[in-house]
Amino acid sequence: MSDINVVMQNAADAFKAYSVLAPAVKVDFLNEIAAQIESAREVLVKTANEETNLPLPRLNGELTRTTNQLKLFANLIKEGSWVEAAIDTADKQRTPPKPDTRKMLLPVGPVVVFGASNFPFAFSTAGGDTASALASGSTVVIKGHSAHAKTSSLVFDAIKKAIEKCGMHPYTVQHVLGSGSTVGKALVQHPETTGVGFTGSLSGGTTLWKLANDRERPIPVFAEMSSINPVVFLPDTLEKNTESLAKTYAASITLGMGQFCTNPGLLLAVKSKVLDDFLALLGNEIEAITPQKMLHKGIQESFTKGLNEALAQKGIRKIGQAAQEPGDGEAYPTVAGVSADIFLQNPHLREEVFGPYSLAVICNDKKQLTEVLTLLKGQLTTTIMATDADIEAHDDIIKLQQTLAGRIILNDVPTGVEVCASMVHGGPFPSTTDARYTSVGTTAIKRWVRPVCFQGFKDSMLPDALKNSNPLNIWRIVNNEYSNTGL
Amino acid sequence: MSDINVVMQNAADAFKAYSVLAPAVKVDFLNEIAAQIESAREVLVKTANEETNLPLPRLNGELTRTTNQLKLFANLIKEGSWVEAAIDTADKQRTPPKPDTRKMLLPVGPVVVFGASNFPFAFSTAGGDTASALASGSTVVIKGHSAHAKTSSLVFDAIKKAIEKCGMHPYTVQHVLGSGSTVGKALVQHPETTGVGFTGSLSGGTTLWKLANDRERPIPVFAEMSSINPVVFLPDTLEKNTESLAKTYAASITLGMGQFCTNPGLLLAVKSKVLDDFLALLGNEIEAITPQKMLHKGIQESFTKGLNEALAQKGIRKIGQAAQEPGDGEAYPTVAGVSADIFLQNPHLREEVFGPYSLAVICNDKKQLTEVLTLLKGQLTTTIMATDADIEAHDDIIKLQQTLAGRIILNDVPTGVEVCASMVHGGPFPSTTDARYTSVGTTAIKRWVRPVCFQGFKDSMLPDALKNSNPLNIWRIVNNEYSNTGL
Repeated sequence: MSDINVVMQNAADAFKAYSVLAPAVKVDFLNEIAAQIESAREVLVKTANEETNLPLPRLNGELTRTTNQLKLFANLIKEGSWVEAAIDTADKQRTPPKPDTRKMLLPVGPVVVFGASNFPFAFSTAGGDTASALASGSTVVIKGHSAHAKTSSLVFDAIKKAIEKCGMHPYTVQHVLGSGSTVGKALVQHPETTGVGFTGSLSGGTTLWKLANDRERPIPVFAEMSSINPVVFLPDTLEKNTESLAKTYAASITLGMGQFCTNPGLLLAVKSKVLDDFLALLGNEIEAITPQKMLHKGIQESFTKGLNEALAQKGIRKIGQAAQEPGDGEAYPTVAGVSADIFLQNPHLREEVFGPYSLAVICNDKKQLTEVLTLLKGQLTTTIMATDADIEAHDDIIKLQQTLAGRIILNDVPTGVEVCASMVHGGPFPSTTDARYTSVGTTAIKRWVRPVCFQGFKDSMLPDALKNSNPLNIWRIVNNEYSNTGL
Repeated sequence: MSDINVVMQNAADAFKAYSVLAPAVKVDFLNEIAAQIESAREVLVKTANEETNLPLPRLNGELTRTTNQLKLFANLIKEGSWVEAAIDTADKQRTPPKPDTRKMLLPVGPVVVFGASNFPFAFSTAGGDTASALASGSTVVIKGHSAHAKTSSLVFDAIKKAIEKCGMHPYTVQHVLGSGSTVGKALVQHPETTGVGFTGSLSGGTTLWKLANDRERPIPVFAEMSSINPVVFLPDTLEKNTESLAKTYAASITLGMGQFCTNPGLLLAVKSKVLDDFLALLGNEIEAITPQKMLHKGIQESFTKGLNEALAQKGIRKIGQAAQEPGDGEAYPTVAGVSADIFLQNPHLREEVFGPYSLAVICNDKKQLTEVLTLLKGQLTTTIMATDADIEAHDDIIKLQQTLAGRIILNDVPTGVEVCASMVHGGPFPSTTDARYTSVGTTAIKRWVRPVCFQGFKDSMLPDALKNSNPLNIWRIVNNEYSNTGL
């Protein structure tokens, strides 16, 4: 892998130049990447459509989300307080004398970003991982996803134009293509790599994570991997909103042919007449869904295999399946049902089937619903559908859900992840390798930095964020008080 | 390990009660632990002195540090802004509608804390790991260190009294003794354990870290392990402050018989006549040091073995060694010297020798000094001793040092770790297992929590930190602006 060695050395060289640039320079660079992507919109969306089968409106929306994301990170570092500056001034009269100590977050080094197959723009080449890493001051090596290699290369062309226009070090961002088991492995193992961002399968993510832990100097891997996103339907809302719930959830399960990390793969409720009605309506809605092509052949085959295996399990019954049979490369939208008695005993049923499939688990009572929730592994999201009366009667269930996931949703669908300061797109293992971080939203920047304390430094030697005069006008903790002024 | 199973189940039960208590209740509890320890000061210090050979003034100071640490965390959670609350309000007019999302840090579950041998109070039973975990809302299981088991049990008695007086769940804090390879292993492997704090050896820390990674659900291990804390002496300060530098560093190297994680184990400089003078003076100072007993027999044997191995390496010469030969269980304070030519070739010389030993590495020129620094592994601290003229001429060296460690010190000694908001007692591997966190100072609390996002929750259902009225009066990011008022 001599090529990878050259790439990573270049990334390390570029880091020395890029990491020390003033925030304003990085702000311009991120905004310029957004502008370059915007001006290539037509060809980007067309190419992505050809490579991924995703429809044009979705791709146009995703591209907008991607450029907005770049601008959001530009605004974050323009504001500047994300570095968590803390200052404790000296007290020479104390015994022993108290030193002057000042802390901030600093980037660590080059970051490797793996493009995700299901979001050719927003979670790929210039997606959230790249945007947050560049904002932090890290240089980035992108391993483009083979399922949309042309799109990835075109997005990288836009980044290159921004690099040239802004006069950045030429290797601030680099792009490589190749197989995960050779190129991807070499990137994660290279000594100059200091962090990894990944969105994809459980096996892919855990493989990278293990490689990173086995290094002489282990590095963090932020892998977003596997989640079945349980949704609890409580009785009063099922009775009052039977039809709208069925419509809403049929749409969420099949949105983008179910190819979202936050797809609702598990529907939980206590058995009742209204639950039967709801499931019948949901089945009807699913039957009316038109099968569409999945992202690529591999994903479609993997979905079909997972679906068939799930449906072959003992005690599983089909609740609804698209009336129109799927054509070549298309998914078969399906909802199945099973009793909680069986679900509790068969761990196979708790595995993610990536695509338009959801399993309804019918519990005998609230106690069994609690048992099911307790048994589940870590999730990106959990959702509760409830009226006020439901909420009052199910406080314990809602509390329990908070232990399961990074995001707890009330009366909405889990699909759709807002890019903002309060978002958590992450969660306990195996939904990610590190529940302490999010891959969506402004705090995603925290993945690429570490705190550094400067003790006894002269003001002129300190980074701007820590200088007495507070030249960046950021919020800091000064002698345990929050302030945005100078000392 | 059926006992450990009971202990961890109890810790999980207690977590359900303790984690949801209002901050004010936890504030009282932490302050009460501090008060109980203070009222047992005499017997605690006496017992620790018998068990660890540490002198009474040091132990009295360490106990005060420990109670101050508990009060510091009490103040942190009383103020409350540490939870990093962020709120983005809904925009129903937007297409698609923007949901209301609110994020904060929440505790994860029971934490296991391993007492450290070298700080029987401040890094043990009621030390920084326990204080920060309890402040976060975690319950704690302490694995007391066998080298000061009586002290640990007495400190735990003080905690128990605070538990009773404050009416906490009886298993909020638990204490176990036993071997690391059986009891310690079982604690880290138990499914209810959600995080581990450890201060000790590289082999101990990496063993726990690997056990945690091999779990079905991996958990974070915060191990502070190994650091030789390089100190760079620049030429102008060596010339101007030869004698005072020698005195200061002889004292730092032998403080507490060198049994500090931040002991300066590596002295770096470019060869010169004044360097020779400095080393000669340093040698004299070391010769005047009186050998004292180390913490326990195992540490003393390990130090003697490490020292003899280091001194037996090719090209090593003794610069100074205590004139008085050590008695039973005592350390042999020693400073040795070696050329950078040899140091660069012998990785053995870069390993920590825990105790009063330091190696001076004499570089041919500034370029070779850079080579030596580049070769070093991750450290807790790096120090630069320099005049203004030195600083001006060595910008590259100072920048390089910032990549090496969690704390960069100018013109001071690395021993002495201030407990405050801006402290970083952490650093790149192998100084710790996770450079993104500190084990000293208020941000140590961040090790035991994860962010959770609440989407679409009614105000009355939200934790107080996220309610519209901001009843805790904390600093929050509301629609991307910092504020400490209500919405």
